[in-house]
Formats: sequence, C-alpha cells, structure tokens
Amino acid sequence: MSASASPPPRTGSRPGGRSSRIRAAVHRAVEELLTDQGDELLTIPVVAARAGVHATTVYRRWGSVGELLTDVATSRFSGDIVVPDTGSLRGDLERYASNLAKDLSDPDTLPLVRATIGTAGEQGASACTRERQEQLRAMLEREEARGHQAPTVERATDALLAPLYYRAVFTNQALTPEWARALVSHLLPD
Amino acid sequence: MSASASPPPRTGSRPGGRSSRIRAAVHRAVEELLTDQGDELLTIPVVAARAGVHATTVYRRWGSVGELLTDVATSRFSGDIVVPDTGSLRGDLERYASNLAKDLSDPDTLPLVRATIGTAGEQGASACTRERQEQLRAMLEREEARGHQAPTVERATDALLAPLYYRAVFTNQALTPEWARALVSHLLPD
Repeated sequence: MSASASPPPRTGSRPGGRSSRIRAAVHRAVEELLTDQGDELLTIPVVAARAGVHATTVYRRWGSVGELLTDVATSRFSGDIVVPDTGSLRGDLERYASNLAKDLSDPDTLPLVRATIGTAGEQGASACTRERQEQLRAMLEREEARGHQAPTVERATDALLAPLYYRAVFTNQALTPEWARALVSHLLPD
Repeated sequence: MSASASPPPRTGSRPGGRSSRIRAAVHRAVEELLTDQGDELLTIPVVAARAGVHATTVYRRWGSVGELLTDVATSRFSGDIVVPDTGSLRGDLERYASNLAKDLSDPDTLPLVRATIGTAGEQGASACTRERQEQLRAMLEREEARGHQAPTVERATDALLAPLYYRAVFTNQALTPEWARALVSHLLPD
C-alpha cells in the first residue's frame, strides 16, 4: 500500500504491466511459503527465489518482511467478506460471525495472520482486522439509522471479533457456525 | 520444556551449573532482542551472539527459533500471575482481569507474545495462554465448590481472556483496569 519513495512519478507504469505482475508473483510466493512452511523462517531472499524475481526488487519495493506481510494481509483481508443485509441487526451479526468463523478456519488464513502479527507488530495486526472493525461499525450504525439501539463498536468487538480471533490464533478449538451465532446471542440477549 | 532426546541420562548435570547459566543467558538475550528490535529478524545466530554462546549450542538445545520462543514464553507466562482469592467469583475475576490487563500492557510482554505466535504457531500460542485457561478454570471450579453456579470455562474464555488478548495483540487501545472489570460485569450481569 505504501508508495515507494525513491522513483520519480510513475507516469510510465502500466496497469497490468510488469510492476503488478511482480506484485502478484511475490504475494503468491508468500502465501504458498506460509502454507507449506515447516520451521523455515520467511526471509526476502526465500520469497524472491520462490517468486522468480531478484531479491533486490523485493527489498526496493517492500523494504522488509514485515512490510511485505502487511501488504499481503491488507489485500487478503480487504473485500473478502461482505457485510450482510438481512433486515435485522441480529440476523446481520449472526451471518457475519459465521462468515468470519469460516474465513478464519481456512487453512491459508491462519498462517498469514500469525506471521503478520509476529513480524509486523501493530501495523501487521491492524492489517488483519481493520476492515472487520469498519464492517462491524457499518452494521451497528445501520441499526441505529433504523431508530433502534445498538451496542457500541467497542462492546461488539469484545463480544464478537475478540473471541473469533482469539480462538483462531490461540487455541486448536473449531470455530463452528453454532458457536459463532451463540456469541451474538450473548451480545444481544433478550 | 522438551527434554533433549540424544544425550545419555544427565546424571552429571548440576542445578545452577553451566547448563542453566546458558539457558538463562539465552532467554535474556531473546527478551532483550525482542524489546530492542527494529525490523531485524530474530535468528539463532543473532540470539547466540547476544547471549555470548555458540550458535551450535543453541541449535542443539532448542532446534529452532520457534522452539526457543516457546520455551521462553512458557517460563515467562508461568507463575507470573497469582489466582486471587477474594471470597467471591466476581471479586476474583475482577482482580484477575485487571492483573492480566496490566501484565499484557508491560512493554516486554507484547513483543514476546507476537513473536511466539508468529514463529511457533499453535504450540507457541498455547505457551502464551495455557496457564491462563487453567487459572480461569480454578476460579470457576472454586465457585462451584461453594455451591454456586458459574459460567463454563469456554464462556469465560470468550468473555474475558479473548478481549484482553485481542485488544493487546490486535489494537493500540489501552487495557485499562476499568475496562477489564467491565468485561466481568458483562459475563456476570445482575
């Protein structure tokens, strides 16, 4: 996401050109390495070799493994889950929580989340969850626009996003859709 | 924690001897490097240099950065927080949640949690939280032994541990004691 500081204005860059082919190859290499990976550390030379590009190209564009992982996580976790519109907050949150549980159970997701947190600190962690916060806010604000009371974003984060991510990242328990829906019933009792 | 498979019975090892001095130096090196660290990847040669020991010694004893971090996290997150005994479940959980919030806010804690998750996957994540689960279970079982109803460990994990770890690892929001206590009031209404 961050524009490279060094080169002059990129008037010559073509969409779909060399630059975006490299980006796609490097992103794919990161995802494949994270899925295959044993104990090997993810380094820029290893990623570059897998992507078939020069390591200097990767260094120049991303600077560090942390920035590269943040970029991969940002594109992986943007636009991948749609905000449901079922007509009720409960319905929206139940569907959203089940979809997120399913996404976090995808075998490709967790290694990327863990590696991004581990290597890119707060910036990386935020790349994994920023859009989730915004989606939650959109559902809560829509409920208020309907003239109903809704929990705060903070409360909904503690009650929904937190257990979904905690269970995925810290435990080996399954993220079942039933459990995800039960989280909503604790947030919205009645 | 894992015993080395190769050497014969360690009848010659003295407590407080060379072996435990090396372990202490290597653990300290990991903690210092994580606190100082910029973008540099934590590798066994870097840790060994900082600890003043041979890299082969570190490889022989821990095998990989993931196993080393798991060992450091296991000792760091064992016995560091005491289970309170205030006479009521609410009092116990409020004090426990505030203590955990404080511990997770320690500038040395978060880099270790993130690096361990990132490098050692599920085993590492479990090293960070295993004792928390057991402590929560102890408080809940004590309440049941008093003849009162208590939430399940699963429910208490979703409502307390999850938001504490999520906020620490994924956000830049402060883990205040007021917020930690409010989590308890959502778990135990009335």
